[in-house]
Amino acid sequence: MEDALSAGPGTPTRTLPSAANGSAEVHGAASATPQLGTPGFVTAVEKALTEFFAAKRATVDPLGVPFIESAEALELFVLRGGKRTRPAFAWTGWLGAGGTSDSPEATAVLSACAALELVQACALIHDDIIDSSRTRRRFPTVHVDFEQRHRERGWAGDSAHFGSSVAILIGDLALAWADDMVHASGLDDAAIGRFAPVWALMRTEVLGGQLLDINGEAGGDDSVEAALRINRYKTAAYTVERPLHLGAAIADADAGLFEAYREYGTDIGIAFQLRDDLLGVFGDPAVTGKPSGDDLREGKRTVLLAEALRRADATDVAAAKLLRTSIGTDLSADDVERLRAVLTELGAVDEVETRIADLTERGLAAIDNSSATESAKQSLRAMALAATRRTA
Amino acid sequence: MEDALSAGPGTPTRTLPSAANGSAEVHGAASATPQLGTPGFVTAVEKALTEFFAAKRATVDPLGVPFIESAEALELFVLRGGKRTRPAFAWTGWLGAGGTSDSPEATAVLSACAALELVQACALIHDDIIDSSRTRRRFPTVHVDFEQRHRERGWAGDSAHFGSSVAILIGDLALAWADDMVHASGLDDAAIGRFAPVWALMRTEVLGGQLLDINGEAGGDDSVEAALRINRYKTAAYTVERPLHLGAAIADADAGLFEAYREYGTDIGIAFQLRDDLLGVFGDPAVTGKPSGDDLREGKRTVLLAEALRRADATDVAAAKLLRTSIGTDLSADDVERLRAVLTELGAVDEVETRIADLTERGLAAIDNSSATESAKQSLRAMALAATRRTA
Repeated sequence: MEDALSAGPGTPTRTLPSAANGSAEVHGAASATPQLGTPGFVTAVEKALTEFFAAKRATVDPLGVPFIESAEALELFVLRGGKRTRPAFAWTGWLGAGGTSDSPEATAVLSACAALELVQACALIHDDIIDSSRTRRRFPTVHVDFEQRHRERGWAGDSAHFGSSVAILIGDLALAWADDMVHASGLDDAAIGRFAPVWALMRTEVLGGQLLDINGEAGGDDSVEAALRINRYKTAAYTVERPLHLGAAIADADAGLFEAYREYGTDIGIAFQLRDDLLGVFGDPAVTGKPSGDDLREGKRTVLLAEALRRADATDVAAAKLLRTSIGTDLSADDVERLRAVLTELGAVDEVETRIADLTERGLAAIDNSSATESAKQSLRAMALAATRRTA
Repeated sequence: MEDALSAGPGTPTRTLPSAANGSAEVHGAASATPQLGTPGFVTAVEKALTEFFAAKRATVDPLGVPFIESAEALELFVLRGGKRTRPAFAWTGWLGAGGTSDSPEATAVLSACAALELVQACALIHDDIIDSSRTRRRFPTVHVDFEQRHRERGWAGDSAHFGSSVAILIGDLALAWADDMVHASGLDDAAIGRFAPVWALMRTEVLGGQLLDINGEAGGDDSVEAALRINRYKTAAYTVERPLHLGAAIADADAGLFEAYREYGTDIGIAFQLRDDLLGVFGDPAVTGKPSGDDLREGKRTVLLAEALRRADATDVAAAKLLRTSIGTDLSADDVERLRAVLTELGAVDEVETRIADLTERGLAAIDNSSATESAKQSLRAMALAATRRTA
């Protein structure tokens, strides 16, 4: 799973009127009034997470060193990076429904929003096992980390199996602790009662999206519909729509705003993923930080590829065959160049660009016509454009 | 992880004055007044689970067939068996704190107690991956089930890796849904607020116990202290103490009753595990349903073994060497017989029997001296004796 939208909302909102200056970071970290899109917001989320982990020590420490090491590995993983995209959407959802960052409940709201990072930690840690990924953010993945510890200590049994076993349990811990953080956030019982059903939907949808993804990959479903459905649940609902809804639920927003957030979240979330798909094939390695055409080598099942296959199956049997036999193999730079040309000539690239433009327009219109506060509308516009027009 | 205590409380409490007759099963299933220890109680728990899964269909179905199949596999796993031990302790904890099975809130309480079966489903599904177990309750484990589906469908990629990947995600789903079931139980927000911190402790402790277990096994910690600590968290807290506390939290019990439940739960839970350890070596295969001496072949790190090693290291170097080189290997019937004799001669068996007797006595005294209702005391006594004096 990509850390979806992670390159998105942080940057542009720094130029909003409410945005950061040097003191905002300190302010955001030290008080309950972080300004979205500022370094202070990220710092405030990380401060809430740090405090949560510190409070857990009372439960963790009596269990002994092996468990302390596991909990520390989780904390390190969660705090090591990330743009805190999901907390940012949840926080914006709350602000848009009338929440104010200088209200007494703001600290509790921020902490509940930050809990999304623990759900994401579970998703990433387990996904790295599933994808057999060796590194994340330039560090060893959790299962590789514990595989290495096992080997270095000369322990009994299979090091790789030990690493995966520990990482399964650490991911479980992250998922359980996400809940705990919501309950310990300081939100009142009624707010948690409104929060819970949205939280339930979000977790089921992301796990469902993951299961669709691995089943589709194994079963060879390369349809546009399958790729769009995975985008809907694995990226859009999980990253944008439900976080906005969580914020709306805390603020007890009306049904109209939930509906606007749904429309915006689905459309912008999918558009983001489509942009990501294009960058995975056509992105500049110097900007994206990934090898050129990496998604083609990995055989990632994107809407872009599905659209190309759909067109090729109808009009160009040779191109269809080339795509199906090349994608997911060890491609040379020339191979990548050739496949890019095929994708473009088939019209798949234009089709995806059109979809992105249409989705973005529709998502922005939903927010424009909503009852969200003006400043939240402004943030959501900036976040949408950042997510769908980015180059990395 | 064993389905700890599963052979325990069900049977003897059937002889309690409040216990079942033919009509109790129907009654328990159809209303909110299941009597603990009756077939009706198990049926009522399974009915609550079935209703929960049915309600989830509205979220699951739109995601499509692969996710529906995964959710169905989870439902089948949860409903296929088990004595519903943890719900039984939680329910008894509530009754003991003054809850009554004909009160208006009883249905909600029962549903929240039943949610423990979903936590247990996650623990078992993930544990079966960690232990590379191929069968559970005579059916393929979840990861093996999906490995077989992958192979039968002739899908791409490694079947075993696919099976584990699906099972990781289905276990995550079970853990997430356990929470959802609590929130959807109908408990009021304040009761959920009291429930949550106990729920948090329970999940952290069982995951901690699991992590201690696999670290101890890999690292070769064969001390009595390590084995007891794993029993404490992986079995006693998770299976007895915290379920009782969950019931007490719903009923808003006083601190004295929480303390009595803690003492009883820790002592009886550990005593249960010690009995299990003895049966794993000395149990009659005709009664236990497992091959004789199975724990010796598997190399299970029990207090029994740790105690034997502690004594052998001090007094009988040859016996210590024999134990360390034999345990966990493919032992013949004669080998098993010889190891049994060594464990007995070292005094480890007597030591463990003494511990069981002392723990049981202390646990029962804690309940006797508590403010629990008389009928709950009676249930807890019967459950304790069933757990610690059983032969299978």
